[in-house]
Formats: sequence, structure tokens, C-alpha cells
Amino acid sequence: MSKNHRIMSGMRPTAKLHLGNMMGALMNWVKLQDEYECFYSIVDWHALTTGYNDTSGLKGYIREMVIDWLSVGLDPEKCNIFVQSQIKEHAELHLLLSMITPLSWLERCPTYKEQLRQLEGREINTYGFLGYPVLMTADILAYKADLVPVGEDQAPHLELAREIVRRFNYLYKPVFPEPEALYTEAKVLPGIDGRKMSKSYDNYIAISATPEEIRQKVMMMVTDPARIKKSDPGHPEICTVYAFNKVFAEEERVKELEESCKNAKIGCVECKKRLADLLVKFMEPIRERRISLEKNPELVNDILNTGAKKAREVASKTLEEVREAMKI
Amino acid sequence: MSKNHRIMSGMRPTAKLHLGNMMGALMNWVKLQDEYECFYSIVDWHALTTGYNDTSGLKGYIREMVIDWLSVGLDPEKCNIFVQSQIKEHAELHLLLSMITPLSWLERCPTYKEQLRQLEGREINTYGFLGYPVLMTADILAYKADLVPVGEDQAPHLELAREIVRRFNYLYKPVFPEPEALYTEAKVLPGIDGRKMSKSYDNYIAISATPEEIRQKVMMMVTDPARIKKSDPGHPEICTVYAFNKVFAEEERVKELEESCKNAKIGCVECKKRLADLLVKFMEPIRERRISLEKNPELVNDILNTGAKKAREVASKTLEEVREAMKI
Ligand code: SF4
Ligand code: SF4
Repeated sequence: MSKNHRIMSGMRPTAKLHLGNMMGALMNWVKLQDEYECFYSIVDWHALTTGYNDTSGLKGYIREMVIDWLSVGLDPEKCNIFVQSQIKEHAELHLLLSMITPLSWLERCPTYKEQLRQLEGREINTYGFLGYPVLMTADILAYKADLVPVGEDQAPHLELAREIVRRFNYLYKPVFPEPEALYTEAKVLPGIDGRKMSKSYDNYIAISATPEEIRQKVMMMVTDPARIKKSDPGHPEICTVYAFNKVFAEEERVKELEESCKNAKIGCVECKKRLADLLVKFMEPIRERRISLEKNPELVNDILNTGAKKAREVASKTLEEVREAMKI
Repeated sequence: MSKNHRIMSGMRPTAKLHLGNMMGALMNWVKLQDEYECFYSIVDWHALTTGYNDTSGLKGYIREMVIDWLSVGLDPEKCNIFVQSQIKEHAELHLLLSMITPLSWLERCPTYKEQLRQLEGREINTYGFLGYPVLMTADILAYKADLVPVGEDQAPHLELAREIVRRFNYLYKPVFPEPEALYTEAKVLPGIDGRKMSKSYDNYIAISATPEEIRQKVMMMVTDPARIKKSDPGHPEICTVYAFNKVFAEEERVKELEESCKNAKIGCVECKKRLADLLVKFMEPIRERRISLEKNPELVNDILNTGAKKAREVASKTLEEVREAMKI
């Protein structure tokens, strides 16, 4: 496919990315960069919607995140990598779109009330928090992206973005394409305790983990609790180690493991060792790239500057069209 | 007084300014430019909060407004005149402040519900309309203005701005002064029908009115309805012509008129003619400046460009400090 579709996606800079992020979103981004014109943004302004009261780590997170992205295979020759707050056009477009976005659209957004409940007590019920989907829409529209890779939880936000596009195009001029969801097979990795892998559960393996850390975490993984002795038959479908194998190992090997586990032909310790070897090997080139990038902060700066320059070029052209359409 | 205070004030570009605006706000601005460092902005983004669905006149209004401002005596050598939307820093600061502004502060703003009621049916209940005071705060803070000339109806907005400043300074660093209200004696001019002078009542005299138009409007003014014959004693305190005299004529003359009217020594037609003469004379130099400015669009452009340049210099410095304080 030629690069005649444009993709925009962003990630908030909040502490270390983990293998769940890598297999869930990033590897997908890596694939997309070959097929589409991609704008990948570290959306630091979004981080303020829930984290305005502690921004001390922000700059460090941004750096770590870019390095994670590059390590897993995002290639600045193939996609545009940039930091949102460096492209002021997002703020201008956010302001302009805010004028045409009915308050009720934001208030009825299912994720809004849900998040308010979850984050209760953290004083996040701010104007900016309510307007998060408007900012996300501005992010997408600044590049006139027509495809947006979304997880299921972001579907309502994309729907809102589409409504804002229709309203803008109707009120002024058809400037924007309606961005469509790009659903992709997301590989779900559990945390080492079997729950969802998440920074807040402290059950994750960081992309930046050393081989030792990887081994340690794998050895801590929750397995089938019914297997007390090696001779007890296992139930791989409820085992975290097996779930990891399904994501990282070849099909053949997964089948073999399933069969050995069910028939008690392999012990959990041995099984974990094998997974640890597999993961360490998988992460080795990523880790090498990481180390070399860490040694070369200038290169990272250059990549971000080049990305920002390209992003700004596109966004400022869009904003010109927007101003012209709105006669402002 | 030295120019060690900074003033920021704005006006929305909505059709022609009238004598009420001139005597109420503009003449006050003209005075202030000698005493303070002043930033006067045509706030076109604000015009979108209530007028996003018809922006066709915006650019023309902006031009007319600058010409009105300059005609009545704002002097680009003494103050900074610029168009809000040319200073992108306002949008960025608006976005950043939106993150720390509790929704409840905006919802409880007395003018918000009041305006919603007044403009019912015009579909203005948008996100941007709710956030109007945040944008106003950004306008003020971009210049670290410490004085804001306000009418009574804007007092709640300034109070909100002060609250946002306190919150910002507390959360991050004391970057901003708390802007204080500068209450000035506002001269209130009624419309020719005796109600408040307002574009929506079509009872106004435009700053750009020709002498003929001025005379016509004055002749249409509502006077004391009890005076049917010239011999009926008048009640100047309820007469529009008298109210105009109080604003435009010298004290001596006002006293004389009061006395003549009460004692039926002057007829309303004669009285109106005198007022018309007075107004035409008062407006003559303003009108001359207006005509010369209309003939010189390049000059107006230059003034706006120079104003924008100066404003941008100050605002971008402020934004640097803001980013540094917020660690973003
Ligand atoms: S053998 Fe492997 S797959 Fe089976 S329960 Fe143990 S760790 Fe899990
Ligand atoms: S004489 Fe003049 S002031 Fe008196 S009522 Fe007539 S117009 Fe008004």
C-alpha cells in the first residue's frame, strides 16, 4: 500500500514503558510506519489533564519514552516523532475547536465520568480535564489524519472527534477528513501477577529492564496454583508464563509447551527459565539500541527537532486553512 | 506617575463602536495610555465564544475597530494595539491554565448562567463559551498585567483570574502578579431611545457617523414626554438630550440648560439642534482622523504589525517563564 493515508497517534509521558505497551501499541506503530505516513507524538500537554500537580518528572519521562520508541523500532526516517507541546498549533486548534464543541458532548462522554470516579480525590475535575477529547481532536486534525489506531477504551473519543469534524466542516468548509478507527490485533500481555500489566500495579517488566531484572521478574510470575508438584498436570490457559509464551514464542513451541504442561512433562521452574531466556534474547537488540541512544543525547535531540519541524510544517499549513475557513 | 504598572484590556470586534463605547471605555483607555504601559487587544477569539456560527464580518470589524480606536485618540506610540489571534501565546497559556482551573469555578461564575439565559436558542453552550474567563485570564497574564480596567459586570471574571493566579503561583512558582481592578468613573450614555446604548437596540450613534447622521439621530432622541408645548416645564433628568449634554457639554452649559428646560425657556427642537452642533463639533477631529486612516490601510496594517510584534515579545517571554515553572 502506498503512503496515502495519514496516521496520528500519541502517548502520554508517564514513567517507564513496559512490555505490555510494547506488544500492545508500539509494535503496531512499528508496523504502521511502513504502510502509512505516521505522526507519533509524546503528548505532554495531555499528561497535565491528570497530572498537573506534579510535573517534576515530565521532561525525564519524555526522554525515556523517545528512547523506548526508538529502541523497539520506530524509525525517524519512516515516521515523524515529536513532542506535542513543541507544536503550538495544537493549542490554537484546541482553542478554535473549543468554540464549536457543545459542552454536552463532553459531559456525556462515557470515559469522562468513569475517570472522574477512578481518580476521585485527586482534584482533577478541571476545565482541561473535561476538554481532553477536544485536545485529542486537535492533535488528530492538525495533521488531517484520516486513520487513528485506537484501543477499545478510546473509541468514544474518536467518535467525538468525528462529530467535531462534521460540525466544523458543516459550519465553515470541509477542511477535515473524518478520522477513522484503525483496529488492529492487539497482543495482550498480563502483568507478572496475572492482572493487567500496569505501572500502578507494579507488576510490569520495563522495556529498559536489564537481563537480570527480566529473569527476576519472570521467576516471580504467577503460574497455575494447582501445580504443587512437578507431577501435577498444569492448566496453561490460566498461567502467566504461558500467556507470555503465546505472545513471544513461535507457534510450534507454544503447542509443545501446552502439551508438556498439561501432561506434567515440564516443571514450572524449568518453564520459567526457558521463558526468561526467550525474553532476554528478544529484548537484546532493543536493549543494545537503548544503550547506544542513552549514550547519544544529541541524536535524540536531533530526532525530536527534526520531527517537530516536519510536524510544524504540516500543522501550520492546516491552521492556515482553518483560519481561512473560519474567516478569522 | 511612571509607567511601572501594566494594563491589559480587550474589546470584542462586533460591528461598529458607538459613542457609548467611546465615552465609557475608550476615552478612559486614552487617559490610561499616558500613565501606564498599556496592552489593548482586539479579542477576536473571544468573539467566537458567542459568534462562532457567523464569522463573515470579523475581519471587517477588526479593521473598523482599530480605526475607531485610533480616531478617538489611542496612540500607537504610547500603547500597544494588537489583534489577539495574532499572538498564539494566548492560546498556549489558555490551554495550560485550563489544566489547573476547577470546572466548578467556571460553572458558578454568575455571568455564565446569566448569559446562557440571555442567549438561549443560539446554541452557545459550548466548551469554549464556558471557558471564556480562562481565555480572559490568559490574555491578562500573558503580559503579567497588574491592573485591569473593569466595568462592574466584569468584576466576577477578574476575581476568577485572581483565583487562577493564586492557584498557579501556589502549584508552581510565583510567576504572576494578582491583577487588580482599576475602577474608573465611567460616563454612561443612553441610547437615543433612552435605554442603554447598544447595537442590539439600534439606538446608537456610531463613532463613524457622518455629521448628517449625527443630526438625524439627535433629532430622533426621546425627550421629556410631559413637554408637549414649548411652554410646558421640562424634567431634564429623564431626558436623553440632557443626559448627552451632561457627558459632552461644559458644566456651565449643563446648568444653564437644566434651568432653561425646567422653566420652559427653551424648546426641545432648539435644544436638540444645539446638542447636534456640539456633537458634530466634538466628533469633527475624530472624524477627520478616521477619514485619513481609511485612506491609508497600509498605516493601519503597520500599526497592527508593530503592536503584535511588541505584544509577542512580552508574551513569549512570559510563556518561557510559565513553561519553566510548570517544568513542561
Ligand atoms: S509449566 Fe509452564 S505453562 Fe505450565 S503452569 Fe508451569 S509455568 Fe505455567
Ligand atoms: S429642552 Fe432639552 S433637556 Fe429639556 S426636555 Fe427638551 S430636549 Fe430635553
